[in-house]
Amino acid sequence: MGYDLIVLGGGPGGYLAAERAGHAGLKCAVIEKKALGGTCLNEGCIPTKSFLYCAKAYEYALHSKDYGFSCDNIKFDHKSVVARKNKIVKTLVSGVGATMKANKVDVIKATGVIKGKKDNEFLIEADGKEYTSKYLIIATGSECAMPPIPGVKEAFAKGVVVTNREILDMEDVPKELVVIGGGVIGLEMAAYFNSIGSHVTVVEMLDHIAGPTDREISKILQDIYTKKGIDFKLGCKVTQVDLDGVNYEADGKSFKVKAEKVLMSVGRTPNTANIGLETLNIEMDRRAIKTDEKCRTNIPNCFAIGDTNAKIMLAHTAYREAEVAVNTILGKNDVVRYNSIPSVIYTNPEIGAIGETEESAKAKGIDFKVAKLPLIYAGRFVAEGGDQTCICKLIVDKKKNTIIGCHVISAYASEFIISMVPIIENEMRVDRIKEYVFPHPTVSEILREVIWTI
Amino acid sequence: MGYDLIVLGGGPGGYLAAERAGHAGLKCAVIEKKALGGTCLNEGCIPTKSFLYCAKAYEYALHSKDYGFSCDNIKFDHKSVVARKNKIVKTLVSGVGATMKANKVDVIKATGVIKGKKDNEFLIEADGKEYTSKYLIIATGSECAMPPIPGVKEAFAKGVVVTNREILDMEDVPKELVVIGGGVIGLEMAAYFNSIGSHVTVVEMLDHIAGPTDREISKILQDIYTKKGIDFKLGCKVTQVDLDGVNYEADGKSFKVKAEKVLMSVGRTPNTANIGLETLNIEMDRRAIKTDEKCRTNIPNCFAIGDTNAKIMLAHTAYREAEVAVNTILGKNDVVRYNSIPSVIYTNPEIGAIGETEESAKAKGIDFKVAKLPLIYAGRFVAEGGDQTCICKLIVDKKKNTIIGCHVISAYASEFIISMVPIIENEMRVDRIKEYVFPHPTVSEILREVIWTI
Repeated sequence: MGYDLIVLGGGPGGYLAAERAGHAGLKCAVIEKKALGGTCLNEGCIPTKSFLYCAKAYEYALHSKDYGFSCDNIKFDHKSVVARKNKIVKTLVSGVGATMKANKVDVIKATGVIKGKKDNEFLIEADGKEYTSKYLIIATGSECAMPPIPGVKEAFAKGVVVTNREILDMEDVPKELVVIGGGVIGLEMAAYFNSIGSHVTVVEMLDHIAGPTDREISKILQDIYTKKGIDFKLGCKVTQVDLDGVNYEADGKSFKVKAEKVLMSVGRTPNTANIGLETLNIEMDRRAIKTDEKCRTNIPNCFAIGDTNAKIMLAHTAYREAEVAVNTILGKNDVVRYNSIPSVIYTNPEIGAIGETEESAKAKGIDFKVAKLPLIYAGRFVAEGGDQTCICKLIVDKKKNTIIGCHVISAYASEFIISMVPIIENEMRVDRIKEYVFPHPTVSEILREVIWTI
Repeated sequence: MGYDLIVLGGGPGGYLAAERAGHAGLKCAVIEKKALGGTCLNEGCIPTKSFLYCAKAYEYALHSKDYGFSCDNIKFDHKSVVARKNKIVKTLVSGVGATMKANKVDVIKATGVIKGKKDNEFLIEADGKEYTSKYLIIATGSECAMPPIPGVKEAFAKGVVVTNREILDMEDVPKELVVIGGGVIGLEMAAYFNSIGSHVTVVEMLDHIAGPTDREISKILQDIYTKKGIDFKLGCKVTQVDLDGVNYEADGKSFKVKAEKVLMSVGRTPNTANIGLETLNIEMDRRAIKTDEKCRTNIPNCFAIGDTNAKIMLAHTAYREAEVAVNTILGKNDVVRYNSIPSVIYTNPEIGAIGETEESAKAKGIDFKVAKLPLIYAGRFVAEGGDQTCICKLIVDKKKNTIIGCHVISAYASEFIISMVPIIENEMRVDRIKEYVFPHPTVSEILREVIWTI
């Protein structure tokens, strides 16, 4: 069957590309071997947020005295939280299905493999059938990286090592959870299991958590969660995983930490193997597909979006790349602006970030200054009893007098970081931003307060 | 003593004006008879938000099953919530004091009265002393309007009728609370006392609640709180207040509703009496001082900001007006853009709004269209179990293809409505806004979803 566009993979990038293309009148199919929604919806963003929200509600009860009420006999029921999550995921997956239908997108439930080109069209095989298309978007996502650490394979087979996938369906709460890798996924799951009573240890090779997050902000998060009981083992290299714990080295010494379960979260690998990329001679950078700011690969009419190009492995980057790829197909001029993509860590407090960090600005040799304030400058933050160590920090380009980075650790940071997107993307001048009226009392007002110190 | 600037009133408008002026090097005094922070900090925004946050935490416990945990014996302790509020207010008031000091602002704790002009300067008397200044900013705020309804005066004297002031220090939870006036203040207090167990009746003269809020949105809020147990008596005129209840008329019939306490919240009156405005011949519009978009009165060098000009009686409007007044004094060109001031109702769910409503756009004869979606289009909203009737609505200028209004009822609406300010204020085109990357999964993403339907 012949299509205008075939999308390989039905995750956030894939389904949105299909939706936009279908909406624009292209004859379009999306090929997905598992459930629509991909990792994000089924095994990532959404399930973790539903877990974390329950943990937050539970924490209010645990600390009820701080909020003027009391209750007894507080018991968390992780099994029911898993069931609740499954229901939510089912609802949202069926929503994606309905959207595909509404936009006349064919959903092919099979593994799609590229077979090369035929009559100048792409030839795709799925479930024994052949499909052709003028345009191809590769959106096959990524999977949990499994480093070749001795014992990992065996422990994974025995169910001791789990990935983002298995941990979300685990019905029992492990007494001890060791998280290998202190990036976003590791931290969010560490935060959840810490809240509901596991003893959590995070083992991280770097000397800091939260990857490229502004270092001052990630340190505050680390301190907050240390107080909450998480053990952070930084600068530590895991040497072996046993069925009862994790062995690691630091400063030449060996240690072992007990673990009932071990979450592997050292990174994600693009799903680019065994899908026939070699038949097109697509240019790669290790496992990632090389793309430009229009998501074009080196092969005309073939695009790669989302985790497959490994530029910024976030669902909303995939969304935007999907739109840019489809707009490019439609002949509309559009590019992904990778400098103004926000990111969030859904711990409690949350981290919201966009643009340059102090570290990245220094590395690029930008002439910048830092403006920052503690969150206690925001009345609502104080009224709600937020952690006093939280801060908001702006990175300001001294020459242009524009904001090039914003980093906040606080409640609601996930929800108000979006306000910095038009500001950074349009390079609005600080004097102009000072004129915006922030609603009072909100936590978002902290941005205004910091802007006024510039 | 002679100043460059005297500010009458130390509320949000007044203290910020003094802060900015002091920061700019003006010799400045703020005259405040009660506590710095004004109504907002002492008897308004901040206290109510601290109440509402506690109620929200309590509601999680009440509905613990929805979030995967259980607890017994849940008891709300309103007294401790009042104590918690007092502590927060104290902290924030002392913060304002410290800011005044840091900016070398003299704080005069007295009632300031204008005595006219002397040698071309303003003459102010406070606590028996005389002060002069080149510039004068009137920021005396507003007070709860007390309509001449029979019985109100007596019931107020007996403590049955309360205003925003008394209700915040009331230590017992009334069995029945009648709220006269279904505007923002009335609704927020109704929401709080409904959450903690009072039977709440809202009596409103109009046929809708929430004043100028988009009608479709306010109806959703009304339906949600009707389900939660609030009785709304709309189109009802209060005829008499007794010590045991409120009498009202509707469709020519008389009714009485029982009340242990009655909250009067029919509006706010500018505090413009007895402060000597007549000595300057300041032009008034009833109780409000007439000002232009630079907050200038008809008297050169005399400004009126915040609730005194009654343009938009919100603390953050006062903030902005304070800045514009000071910038005007400093010779900087600045104006208040009243069309892009957001507003929030802190119920649960919250309402965030900015710009034109369907009603106001129609009234102005604007050629507009409406774009809207239910909040269930936002993954996080679904993951957190938000009320399915919530919607997000945009008002779009058809000719310009710009957004001129945004109205959301949902969790976090207060925190992400700010993102629409640069968009509306800069009249960004819809095609451009579509390119912004919203973090996923957030509730704020609903804006993106609605924008895409335009």
